[in-house]
Amino acid sequence: MPIPSFEITDRDAGTRARAGVIHTAHGPLPTPAFAPVGTRGAVKALAPKDLLALGAGVIMSNAYHLAIRPGAETVAALGGLHRLAGWDGPMMTDSGGFQVFSLETKARVDDGGVTFRSHVDGSTHRFSPESVISLQEALGADLVMPLDVCTDYPVPRDVAEAEMRLTHAWAERARRAHTRADQALYGIVQGSVFDDLRAESARVIAGLGFPAFAIGGVSVGEPKAEMWAAVDAVIPHLPDAAPRHLLGVGYPEDLVEGVARGIDTFDCVMPTRIARNAGALTMDGRINLRNAIHARQPGPIAEDCGCYACRHFSRGALRHFTLAGEVLGLHLLTLHNLHFCLLLMRQIRAAIADGAFEVLRREFLARYAGGTFAPAGTAVPMVAR
Amino acid sequence: MPIPSFEITDRDAGTRARAGVIHTAHGPLPTPAFAPVGTRGAVKALAPKDLLALGAGVIMSNAYHLAIRPGAETVAALGGLHRLAGWDGPMMTDSGGFQVFSLETKARVDDGGVTFRSHVDGSTHRFSPESVISLQEALGADLVMPLDVCTDYPVPRDVAEAEMRLTHAWAERARRAHTRADQALYGIVQGSVFDDLRAESARVIAGLGFPAFAIGGVSVGEPKAEMWAAVDAVIPHLPDAAPRHLLGVGYPEDLVEGVARGIDTFDCVMPTRIARNAGALTMDGRINLRNAIHARQPGPIAEDCGCYACRHFSRGALRHFTLAGEVLGLHLLTLHNLHFCLLLMRQIRAAIADGAFEVLRREFLARYAGGTFAPAGTAVPMVAR
Repeated sequence: MPIPSFEITDRDAGTRARAGVIHTAHGPLPTPAFAPVGTRGAVKALAPKDLLALGAGVIMSNAYHLAIRPGAETVAALGGLHRLAGWDGPMMTDSGGFQVFSLETKARVDDGGVTFRSHVDGSTHRFSPESVISLQEALGADLVMPLDVCTDYPVPRDVAEAEMRLTHAWAERARRAHTRADQALYGIVQGSVFDDLRAESARVIAGLGFPAFAIGGVSVGEPKAEMWAAVDAVIPHLPDAAPRHLLGVGYPEDLVEGVARGIDTFDCVMPTRIARNAGALTMDGRINLRNAIHARQPGPIAEDCGCYACRHFSRGALRHFTLAGEVLGLHLLTLHNLHFCLLLMRQIRAAIADGAFEVLRREFLARYAGGTFAPAGTAVPMVAR
Repeated sequence: MPIPSFEITDRDAGTRARAGVIHTAHGPLPTPAFAPVGTRGAVKALAPKDLLALGAGVIMSNAYHLAIRPGAETVAALGGLHRLAGWDGPMMTDSGGFQVFSLETKARVDDGGVTFRSHVDGSTHRFSPESVISLQEALGADLVMPLDVCTDYPVPRDVAEAEMRLTHAWAERARRAHTRADQALYGIVQGSVFDDLRAESARVIAGLGFPAFAIGGVSVGEPKAEMWAAVDAVIPHLPDAAPRHLLGVGYPEDLVEGVARGIDTFDCVMPTRIARNAGALTMDGRINLRNAIHARQPGPIAEDCGCYACRHFSRGALRHFTLAGEVLGLHLLTLHNLHFCLLLMRQIRAAIADGAFEVLRREFLARYAGGTFAPAGTAVPMVAR
C-alpha cells in the first residue's frame, strides 16, 4: 500500500457518496471522516485519549497558529506535531490562509505572499507559498494545505476572480516547493459563489496534479444553497480517485449533505465551540444547558446517547458545572458534541457500505432539520413535531 | 461487614502508621488514602473516569459550596451528590466551616450557629450544627463532617479555648441530629497549636462516641512543627479502632509524616491548585512549566513517571499548552500531580503491609525534602545534590 494513498471501498448508487480509506504514515483514516479541530495542537478541553475513545480518525491543526506559538523550530525540536499533540494517528494542518485573512492580522497580500501581524503579540510575519510548505514540512502533519487566498463573502466577481488566480499561482509554487513524500499536499479550490469560477478553479487545480483536493472559501457567510452550488460546480472537475476535503464545514446536516455531494473529509470547530457556550447537539435540536429548565432534570442530554457524558451525568449536573465555571462541564459537553458528529460519520460509512446511505440521509434530515438547530441562512421547514 | 465500618489490616512496628479499609455504602476505601478535592462536585479539570484510572478511592466535596450552588434541594432532585458528580465510589463532604470563616463571607458566630453571606451573590445564609447535618444528609456523602469553628492562626489561647468549646457543643448537637445510618459522621478536634487544648478536645470529642475523627484547624498558617505537635497531642486520645482524617493536608511529605503519626485519610487542593499555576510535582522538587528552560525539552516531567501526561507529552508541549491557555495543559498537570500523590499513597499502603514503611519514609524524605519543594515555614536542609 503506497503512503499516502486513497482507496475507495464502496460507492452509493444514488449519490456521489463514497467510502474509503486514506492511508497515511500514521495509519489509515476511514472516510467519510470528520476532523475535530486542534488549532494549537490540542482539541479544546479534550485529551488525545478522549479522542481515541470517541473514535476520532484525524485531528486538524493549524500551521499559522503553531508558527506564531510555539514556533515551527520549537515544534520540530520537540519531535514534531504528532509528538507535541500526543496523537499518533493521522493529522492534518490547515495553512492558516483563513486565519491570516480573518484574525485582525492586517494582512497585506502581494503576488509573492502575505504580510501580517501576529494576533498574539503584534509582531510582523510573512508567509509565502514556499515558506508555508517549509513550515508544514517542519511540523510534519500527514495531510497538508498550501497557502491560498480565502475569498471573503460577499465580494464582486472581479475580486473573486483575481484572488482565485493568485490562489492558482500560489498552488503551483507550493506544489513545486513540496518535498516530503510522506505528506499529501492538497490543492485548494476557490472561486467564491460563482459557479463558473469554481469550475475553472477545480480544472486548473486538478491540472496541477495534486494527490488530494480541498474546497476553500466556503462557510464564510454565504447561504447554504450557495455553498452547495459551489461544491456541485467543483466536484465533477476533480479526479474521482483523489480524496476531497471541505474546509471549515460542518454542522451535522452539512456532513450528510457534503458526503452526498462527494466530499470525503470535513473539519469544523462547531462541536467544540458550541460546548464553550453550553450548547449540546441532540437529534431533536440543539439545547443550551444554561437554560433554567435543565436545573433539576435528572436525565441525560439525550436518552439514547451512549457517550460518557450521557451515561454518567444529568442535565442538571451539566448545568451546575457549566454555571460554576468547572472545566468538567466544558469537557463533558465537548465529548458529547464530538461523539454526536463522529457517530454520525460512522453511521454514514456503514450506510454507504450497506447501500443504505439514501435512507440514512432522508431519515436524518427529516428528524434533524426539523429541530431548532437551524444554521443562519437556512429555511427550516415548518413541520409538525 | 457493617456499613460504615473501619478495619485495620496492618500496622507498622516502629510508628503509629496503620493500613486498613473504610467500608462505605459506595464500596471500600483502602487506607491510608488521599482524597482529591472536588469542591463543587468536580475535581478541577478531571472527569471521574480520570480519577478511576488514577486509582483515587474517595473524593472530598464541600457542603457549603454545594448549598450555595446549586443548592441541596437541587442536588437531591438530581439524585444526590454521587449522581451529580458522576462518581459511584466513596465520597466525603466537609461541612464548610473552613470556607465560611475564610471566604470573605463576613461570618458572625453565635452559640446557635453562624450567619454569613454567600461568596457568589452576597445573599445571607445561616448554618447551625443541625442544618449542616440536614444539608449533608440531603447531599448523601458517605463520610461527613459536622459544623465546627475553624480556629485561625495565630490566636490568643483564650480565643482558641472558647472556639474549641463551641466546636464541642456543636459536635454534640450534630451527633444528636444525625440520622443516616449509612453515613459516618466525623468528630472534629480543634484547639489550635495549644497541645493541652488539643488533648482536651480529643478526649471530649472521643467521649461523644463518633465513629470517626478529624483534626481541623491545621494547615492554617502555623509552622509545620506546630502542626505535627498538635497531631501528636491528639492521636493518643482518639480510639485506636476509628479512622482519623487530617483536614486540608497535605503536601507529599505531609502525607508520609501524617501516616507515621497515625492519620488514615487526607484531603488537599494542592495537587490540583498548583497545576493551575503550571506547577508539577517531581521527586526532585516542584517544577514550573512556564519557565523558558522547558520550551524545547523533549522529555517528560519525570522520566520514571508512568502517568498519562509523562507517557505522552514533552515538557515543551506542556509549556506550550499552558502558555496558550489550553485546557489540555491544566488537565495533564492535574493528572500528573494527582498521580504523584495517589501513587505515593499506594506505596505507603504496600510498605505498611510489607513492614517497610520506615524505609519508605526515610528514603522518600531524604530525596524529596532535599528538593526545591519547601512549604512555607519549613527549613530545608542545605544538602549537596
